[in-house]
Amino acid sequence: MRDVCVLGLGLIGGSVLRAASAAGRTAWGATASPADAAAAAADGFDVEETVDVALARAAERDALVVVAVPLPAVDEVLRRVAAVAPTCRLTDVVSVKEQVDDAVRYRLPGARYVGGHPMAGTSRSGWAASDEALFRDAAWVVIADEDHPEPEVLLDVITLALDCGAHVVPATAAEHDSAVARVSHLPHVLAAVLAAVGADGGPLAMALAAGSFTDGTRVAGSDPELVRAMCEGNRTALLDAVDDALGRLGAARGSLASTGGLAKTIQAGHAGRRTLDAQRVVKRTGISVDLTSPGALEALLALGARGGRITAVRGTSALAETS
Amino acid sequence: MRDVCVLGLGLIGGSVLRAASAAGRTAWGATASPADAAAAAADGFDVEETVDVALARAAERDALVVVAVPLPAVDEVLRRVAAVAPTCRLTDVVSVKEQVDDAVRYRLPGARYVGGHPMAGTSRSGWAASDEALFRDAAWVVIADEDHPEPEVLLDVITLALDCGAHVVPATAAEHDSAVARVSHLPHVLAAVLAAVGADGGPLAMALAAGSFTDGTRVAGSDPELVRAMCEGNRTALLDAVDDALGRLGAARGSLASTGGLAKTIQAGHAGRRTLDAQRVVKRTGISVDLTSPGALEALLALGARGGRITAVRGTSALAETS
Repeated sequence: MRDVCVLGLGLIGGSVLRAASAAGRTAWGATASPADAAAAAADGFDVEETVDVALARAAERDALVVVAVPLPAVDEVLRRVAAVAPTCRLTDVVSVKEQVDDAVRYRLPGARYVGGHPMAGTSRSGWAASDEALFRDAAWVVIADEDHPEPEVLLDVITLALDCGAHVVPATAAEHDSAVARVSHLPHVLAAVLAAVGADGGPLAMALAAGSFTDGTRVAGSDPELVRAMCEGNRTALLDAVDDALGRLGAARGSLASTGGLAKTIQAGHAGRRTLDAQRVVKRTGISVDLTSPGALEALLALGARGGRITAVRGTSALAETS
Repeated sequence: MRDVCVLGLGLIGGSVLRAASAAGRTAWGATASPADAAAAAADGFDVEETVDVALARAAERDALVVVAVPLPAVDEVLRRVAAVAPTCRLTDVVSVKEQVDDAVRYRLPGARYVGGHPMAGTSRSGWAASDEALFRDAAWVVIADEDHPEPEVLLDVITLALDCGAHVVPATAAEHDSAVARVSHLPHVLAAVLAAVGADGGPLAMALAAGSFTDGTRVAGSDPELVRAMCEGNRTALLDAVDDALGRLGAARGSLASTGGLAKTIQAGHAGRRTLDAQRVVKRTGISVDLTSPGALEALLALGARGGRITAVRGTSALAETS
């Protein structure tokens, strides 16, 4: 089992270090946050003094390096990787993928890089919020773009995600960014809009708020700085999603004002929710993709586009289930 | 304790019949639905053959009549009340209040009417979904408009709500309709929009949907016919709420496109959600309003506007708590 070097020990990085260790991997970390470093060490984890020391060890051990810092700090960490461990296998767990991909190409043109993004989180942050079970049953996107073809690294990243308890969804960086804009970033924007319009109704409206408002505004309770950074980091794809929402909300407004009817809006929403529920029913068709075969990336991307997922690895093959 | 006659034995009416009976009140019901009537009778409740028979008994016993039918059926029921029990004390549990108020004035100009609306529900419907605990800890709006001044009826309706386990929030019909547009109907519209935009992202987007999307679209899973009727029934107030949401979402779009920033949107949403959470902290100032006193309605409406609630009745006084 390949060693794991985690750079950044906040909620996600800390949880990767915990989960990889729990899976029996040799894993260590480093962070620029003295508080997170001290807390991780106090919890008995292997924390190196600096990122450079951690990377030198990674280079020596041919470890998989996991970049787990917030988007604004990614470039600086990639500079350290380029300086100390440029030939290491490299992945990341940042919530947008095209920007990170661009940064990797710029700083490490020959990088052995396969991006990733575990779809898990809480409204808390820092090592104190980390949890070895955070990724259990979560989707972990692994980027299978054509320009990152090294099957061995792909296998390493998929294996790490599976070891952390997640299942793997293959996608291109652009597909990922577009999908999360719709199902992760737009929900935060709409929750913020709803919370503000509700609060504008004053104490009476707040006193009458029941389940629909409470659920619809839950994520507006998250740290606003983290939400803002996450949404702004996916600007282009989020603009498309917001435009779709504006179009649908405007159509609802027009229909309500002119005919008094909302049937089309409500029916489309109900159908959308049923699609989600239906897809969550366990898929039963098993397929196997040999990652060293010529059509492997194409097969993986087709699998992800159909809503399929990789649940295990055997030899050089990914075992997947799909509807 | 005044007898209770419930017209309509679906989710809400059925739950009122159950809760009033459980509180030791003599209560009976009637419904145009043979299925609900049979199910309620099979569960041991007192179900009259027809609405007219139930109303004749109400007139004889000077009972409180509770209209618990969907909005489109309200007018027909009010015609029966006018024909059989025009002097009975009257309330309703319908989710919009100005329309019902207008219908009561038209059919029963001298009605002893005080409207109500319990803020409770589930995505299921019919007697089978009814539950004597449905209203426990829920807000039950009681309309304290100046043109329905009979303190005795006000007291009867407040007492029924409290007997059902709810707390009472006083408001005018217009205040109610505006508030629920923001915190109950707009959440359904935004959930529908979000579910549709998410599903438009295809199987990959659905595979990546996590907590924010699941929570934000939960109510889109409700029966679309019921949601549509509820939202369309509050058309004027909902248009205002949708316009506010369009304005805020449009501003977010503009800011994201021009400067790339979402700080204002996210901060306002976070502040709104904190307002909700803060108001849910138990209020500790107790006040008492004698419903027979000249300034009673004014005092009740001021209480509701501040986010206060009535939690008990002693003699002719409502005991309330407010921040």
